[in-house]
Amino acid sequence: MKKTKISNNVIRRLPRYLRKLDELAQGGAERISSKELGNQMGLTPSQIRQDFSCFGEFGQQGWGYSVPILREEISSILGIDCGFSMVLVGVGNLGHALMNNFDFVRYGFSLIAAFDVDPALVGTAISGTQILHADELEGFLQRNRADIAVLTVPREAADATAGLLTRCGVRAIWNFTNKELEIQRRGAIIEDIHFSDSLLSLGYFLAESLEQEEGE
Amino acid sequence: MKKTKISNNVIRRLPRYLRKLDELAQGGAERISSKELGNQMGLTPSQIRQDFSCFGEFGQQGWGYSVPILREEISSILGIDCGFSMVLVGVGNLGHALMNNFDFVRYGFSLIAAFDVDPALVGTAISGTQILHADELEGFLQRNRADIAVLTVPREAADATAGLLTRCGVRAIWNFTNKELEIQRRGAIIEDIHFSDSLLSLGYFLAESLEQEEGE
Repeated sequence: MKKTKISNNVIRRLPRYLRKLDELAQGGAERISSKELGNQMGLTPSQIRQDFSCFGEFGQQGWGYSVPILREEISSILGIDCGFSMVLVGVGNLGHALMNNFDFVRYGFSLIAAFDVDPALVGTAISGTQILHADELEGFLQRNRADIAVLTVPREAADATAGLLTRCGVRAIWNFTNKELEIQRRGAIIEDIHFSDSLLSLGYFLAESLEQEEGE
Repeated sequence: MKKTKISNNVIRRLPRYLRKLDELAQGGAERISSKELGNQMGLTPSQIRQDFSCFGEFGQQGWGYSVPILREEISSILGIDCGFSMVLVGVGNLGHALMNNFDFVRYGFSLIAAFDVDPALVGTAISGTQILHADELEGFLQRNRADIAVLTVPREAADATAGLLTRCGVRAIWNFTNKELEIQRRGAIIEDIHFSDSLLSLGYFLAESLEQEEGE
């Protein structure tokens, strides 16, 4: 299927659709209407139809969507079948948490190595992934292709590490350092996880809700 | 200032504006035009003017925005001055990472206690916050007001813990369990951090970029 240009807002909703479809498939659902899907996700049926129309026509009037077909199409659009390989740099608490708990394989990614400077960690493995010394990163990337790097180093080391990674052929950075990386201006593909943005939004919604109650 | 209803998309951008304004203030900037701010953030000047117009008029034609005033207004809208108190439940790697590295105070939040079941953790403290046994959670919340809970328990414990928290008066949940919580349907205020959504989006942007190169 030839992809047309899909807006970023739609892209951002696709993983959520996929989670919902996984849940529906696990529950044994075969078909779902845009109305029911909307109900379960807090979206309007027309928004759902519009989102899905961006990448082809899956729904049938009066029949709804096939859960397995829709699931497969969204997986494919998201590139889950691309088999991207990853390295993780910085095995602190957050790096540990991701290596221990995040199911890279399930989402089609392969974590091939992790790197840290701590002698107590180097040579060990977490969830089957070897931890090598950060000094070996450059050599490792000359011998092995890594498409994406998980950046979980301390903030101070963020730009230097990201620069090294992209010079060594890494194309995309999953950035947990809470720093806008300098390489972003040079067109690198970066996805930031800003914990503070998320908490500040939550604070806003809570303040708004309390204000409404006071007003009642 | 009386707030008008602000769209969720604008709310989501406010923390990013705040980060940028912090950076500008640190660099000594007093004023910035919507054009320059747009350049630095990858937004159009008209989008910026539209975003800011939602909550009043700060800019002056030909003068741009005052960095400190805009910063203060956005902080206030986000509720940074509300002084919300928080508890954290689940001091695994991710809980550790947040307690060690996340600057709650800087964003106006106060982390008053953490809870876990691990006897090796109970009675210790991380970054000055005491870790109590999870059995003490209910009693603690009867004696102390907590507005927000950070939910970093294992996925299996997510719904039970979230239910207990809301029954004990916690109004909002910052949810790291990668599970859509049941209490969401009952109108609780929840902000999810879905690592997988973020990585899947990154995978999409990378796949799209590689496809474009092949097409060239």
